[in-house]
Amino acid sequence: MINRLVIIGVGLVGGSLALALRQSGYCREVIGVGRDRSSLQRAQALGVVDRSELDACAAVRGADMVVLATPVGAIESVCRSLRGCLDEKAILTDVGSVKGAVVEAVQAGLGMLPARFVPAHPIAGRERSGVEAATAELYQGRRVILTPLPGGDPEACESVRGMWEAAGAVVENMAVGHHDEVLAATSHLPHLLAYTLVSSLSRLDEQEEIFRYAAGGFRDFTRIASSDPVMWRDICLHNKGPILDMLKHFGRDLATLGEAIDAGDGDRLLSIFQRAKQTRDRFCD
Amino acid sequence: MINRLVIIGVGLVGGSLALALRQSGYCREVIGVGRDRSSLQRAQALGVVDRSELDACAAVRGADMVVLATPVGAIESVCRSLRGCLDEKAILTDVGSVKGAVVEAVQAGLGMLPARFVPAHPIAGRERSGVEAATAELYQGRRVILTPLPGGDPEACESVRGMWEAAGAVVENMAVGHHDEVLAATSHLPHLLAYTLVSSLSRLDEQEEIFRYAAGGFRDFTRIASSDPVMWRDICLHNKGPILDMLKHFGRDLATLGEAIDAGDGDRLLSIFQRAKQTRDRFCD
Repeated sequence: MINRLVIIGVGLVGGSLALALRQSGYCREVIGVGRDRSSLQRAQALGVVDRSELDACAAVRGADMVVLATPVGAIESVCRSLRGCLDEKAILTDVGSVKGAVVEAVQAGLGMLPARFVPAHPIAGRERSGVEAATAELYQGRRVILTPLPGGDPEACESVRGMWEAAGAVVENMAVGHHDEVLAATSHLPHLLAYTLVSSLSRLDEQEEIFRYAAGGFRDFTRIASSDPVMWRDICLHNKGPILDMLKHFGRDLATLGEAIDAGDGDRLLSIFQRAKQTRDRFCD
Repeated sequence: MINRLVIIGVGLVGGSLALALRQSGYCREVIGVGRDRSSLQRAQALGVVDRSELDACAAVRGADMVVLATPVGAIESVCRSLRGCLDEKAILTDVGSVKGAVVEAVQAGLGMLPARFVPAHPIAGRERSGVEAATAELYQGRRVILTPLPGGDPEACESVRGMWEAAGAVVENMAVGHHDEVLAATSHLPHLLAYTLVSSLSRLDEQEEIFRYAAGGFRDFTRIASSDPVMWRDICLHNKGPILDMLKHFGRDLATLGEAIDAGDGDRLLSIFQRAKQTRDRFCD
C-alpha cells in the first residue's frame, strides 16, 4: 500500500499508473507534478490525480513513493530540483525505456544515488501520448523490468514490485546494462526501422500513391512510427552504444539479403525467410 | 457472371476468391486445379471448389475465366501445360504480387500473350497460407490492381474487374512497371525488413530472452515475417530491380539515422521521427 504517491510527468505512462493504482485502491493519494498547468488541470479533471503541483520539491514532501515519468531527457533537471526534498523513507523510481542513462541522470541530478532508488521500465505500447490517452488497463498483463542497483535497498525494490503488480503487471529483474542491450534489440531497433521506412517512403515522388496502396500489413508494420518523437529522440541519445551495435548487426544482415537477391540466390533467400518465420511462429502468437 | 471458373492453385488466395464468388452467386461452377490430390480433396470437402482436376489442360476446356493462383515461380510451367488448351473466348488472369515477371512467364509459357490475358494483383494480408485459411471475406474492401497490357482486350479487363468487385474488392488500374515499383516500396521492402529483423535477432545469443521481452509493438511489427517463405522468395527473384532500388534507398536513410545517433544530433533525430509520425498519422488510421 502507498500512502502518498507523487507522479512527476502525468502523461500516458505516469497517468495510466496513477489510474490503475487509484482504481485498485493501492494508494491513498496521488499528486501530479508537471510544468504545464493546463495539462495538470486536465489530469485532475480526468480523475487521474487527486491534486497537482508545479513545484516538484514541495510535492514530494511526505511522499512514500515518487515516480519519475518525464521523458528520459528531463530526468536530470527534475532530479536537480528534488535535491534535499525527498523524505528519508521515500522510494524513488522511474519508467524510462533506457536504464543506464537514467541511473546516470539521477546521480547527476541528485548528486548521489539514493539507496531507495529502483530503476524500472514498464514495457507497454505507447503509440498515443498525453494524459488523455491514459487508461487503468495499460499495464494489465504487461511486463515491467526492474533493474535494481548493487547496494540498493531490497525492501524498496519489493515495494516497487508490489506497486506494479497492483497495476496488473508481471515484474522481473534484470541488470541495467543487460536491459539496455535486450531493449535495443526488441524495441529500439524495430522503432528505428519503422520510423526510417515511413520517412524514407515519404520522400519518394509517388508518396501519395504509395501510402494509398499500403495494405493491412503495412499499417501494422508502421504503427510504431506513430510513437512520440521526443521520447524516441531521447531513447536514441541515451542508449547510443547498444542501438548502434544493433543497427550494425541488422545492416550487415540486410546487405547479405540484398546480395542474395542480386545474385538470384533462391535457396539462400528461402532459408532466411524460413528461419524468420519459424522463429516468429515459435515465440509470437 | 462467370459460367465456369478455373482456379489453378487452390491455396489461401485462389481459394478465398472461389469462396467469395460462390457465396455471391457470381459463378455457376468452380474447378480447382493443383498437383497435390489430397489438397484438392480438402478444397472440395471445404466447399471451396465444385470439383477438381490434376490436368490443367483438361480443366480449362470450356472455361470462361481461368485464374492463375500458384506462386509466381510456377506460372511459366503452368502456362506451358496450357498451350493450345484455352478456349478462344476464355479470359486468363492471375493474382501474383509482381506483374512484370508474371507477364514474361505467361508469354514464355504460352509462347504468346493472349489478348484476353489481364494481369491482376489483389492486395490482401496473407500471413497464413493453404486452402484451410481461405475465407469468402478476404477481399472485402481490399484493393485489387489490374495492370492491363497495351493492345489487350478491354472487355476482358472489364470482366476481371467485375469478378473482383463481386468478391468485394475495390479495383484500380496501373501500368505493369509502375505497379512493381509501388509494391516494392509498400509491401516488398517492409516484408524484407521484418524477415531480416527476426532472422537477425534469432542469431543473437540472447534470442530466448529477446523474444520473451518483445512487447505488442514487436508482434505487430514482425507479423508479416510469418508470411509464406516460398511466395516471398519468388517475389524477390521476380521483382529484383525495384526491390534492390528500394533496399538501397532505405539503406542510405538507415545509415543517415545511425550517423545522427552516433553524433548525438537530437534535432536531426527529432525531425526524422516527426516527419515519419506526421506522414503515418496522415495516411493510416
